[in-house]
Amino acid sequence: MTSYEKLINAQKINSSMLCVGLDPDINKLPVSYNKRPEEILRFNQAIIEATKDIACCYKINFAFFEQYGITGYEILKKTFEAIPDWLFTIADAKRGDIGNTSAAYANSVLDYFKADSITVSPYMGKDSVTPFLNFQKKMVFILALTSNEGSGDFQRLISDGQPVYSHVVNKSKSWGGKSQIGYVVGATHPDELKVIRKLIPENCLLIPGIGAQGGDIEATIKANDRGPAIINVSRAIIYASNGDDFAEKAREKALEYREMMKK
Amino acid sequence: MTSYEKLINAQKINSSMLCVGLDPDINKLPVSYNKRPEEILRFNQAIIEATKDIACCYKINFAFFEQYGITGYEILKKTFEAIPDWLFTIADAKRGDIGNTSAAYANSVLDYFKADSITVSPYMGKDSVTPFLNFQKKMVFILALTSNEGSGDFQRLISDGQPVYSHVVNKSKSWGGKSQIGYVVGATHPDELKVIRKLIPENCLLIPGIGAQGGDIEATIKANDRGPAIINVSRAIIYASNGDDFAEKAREKALEYREMMKK
Repeated sequence: MTSYEKLINAQKINSSMLCVGLDPDINKLPVSYNKRPEEILRFNQAIIEATKDIACCYKINFAFFEQYGITGYEILKKTFEAIPDWLFTIADAKRGDIGNTSAAYANSVLDYFKADSITVSPYMGKDSVTPFLNFQKKMVFILALTSNEGSGDFQRLISDGQPVYSHVVNKSKSWGGKSQIGYVVGATHPDELKVIRKLIPENCLLIPGIGAQGGDIEATIKANDRGPAIINVSRAIIYASNGDDFAEKAREKALEYREMMKK
Repeated sequence: MTSYEKLINAQKINSSMLCVGLDPDINKLPVSYNKRPEEILRFNQAIIEATKDIACCYKINFAFFEQYGITGYEILKKTFEAIPDWLFTIADAKRGDIGNTSAAYANSVLDYFKADSITVSPYMGKDSVTPFLNFQKKMVFILALTSNEGSGDFQRLISDGQPVYSHVVNKSKSWGGKSQIGYVVGATHPDELKVIRKLIPENCLLIPGIGAQGGDIEATIKANDRGPAIINVSRAIIYASNGDDFAEKAREKALEYREMMKK
């Protein structure tokens, strides 16, 4: 089975577009936890256990593990192992470099960590992305229009009548099939999401920016126009409570978000 | 002392613009070595020992360590520790994400690994770069025009009469002082390097692409016009021989490159 098929399956089984983003931060762990990196694994396991029948996938933010050094890296490996095999995983690592280096990143993320997919920055062009596509059963989510304020700095520059992000989408969509190439488009820009959806009606969108970042679910769902999509929520779910009921509250929030996405 | 001062110092002491790039690959280790990730540390230590009075800095390519998982990450930490304190280090990690995530990457690379500087992708704009600049003694090298073929895909798109890479340079140069912000410009594009140098006469350029990638040293030095710069050579030095004389041959190559850069 390809990772794309796994995603479609998981979306059907859990009747869900919801992706739970794991951005572990020791300062936000439940008050009863020790504020030590080692506690992150227990936290992640509890969040996964509480949401595995609600989410279609988990987005693992590499930075939040890497900041704890070797301990963090070990927890990153064990977090991937804690996710049931039939659920899709996104390595949110924003990698991209010259060919031989992207190939090494692909070995790390897609082979060593066994992620189903990875987020990739397009700035360095085709030969920085294709080494990831050489893992033919896996997926790549190319940054198109990101959810943050800085997305306006370069992604929206107009060249030949089109913003840079449209050039990224139009050029890269031919680098692989729709079961391998998806795009990151922030929920904070529903009008542009609609434009991008029209450029690539069949590619999967990974949509961050809901929850703490302020994106609107209803506008996002409408702009997405029933295309294949994953909608990510991180902080608003995993830090719904910092009491001992954190997993229960995360589950409640995840259920709420899943229902809102169904409308 | 700031990292920038450390760099200028090291360049004076070793009379060198040469950066040795550490891209360790077990398949290219000396024939007498076991082809095991653990051997990489011994290899790196020998290369550092053989070149520490010739190079002004070392560029550590994170992908080549990350591909070996937790073992690779441990070797990465020990490789940083093997570099003498007075020599400048570049974490070639090409990171960049939304603010809280870039802040976590900065913690990892600049605090945990104690790198003097990091390469950063500008695609996500200002708030993806400034968290690294919050480490006020450290440096950031923003990708402007990279050395690879794919640099032509999006970096050269023309907007408002200027290529995207010029927009990147012109906009980002105000995000911090010249002792904090440098740029990556490939030696494979000397004409454009000249243009970029005029836009930022005082910022440090990190110039890859010499050696295996085919960039020309003489044209590069001329285009750089005596601005502050670091010229990186990786494979052509560290894999100069795969015999037991590999460190000696690396030293010879490093001396050759340093002399060529002085002309």
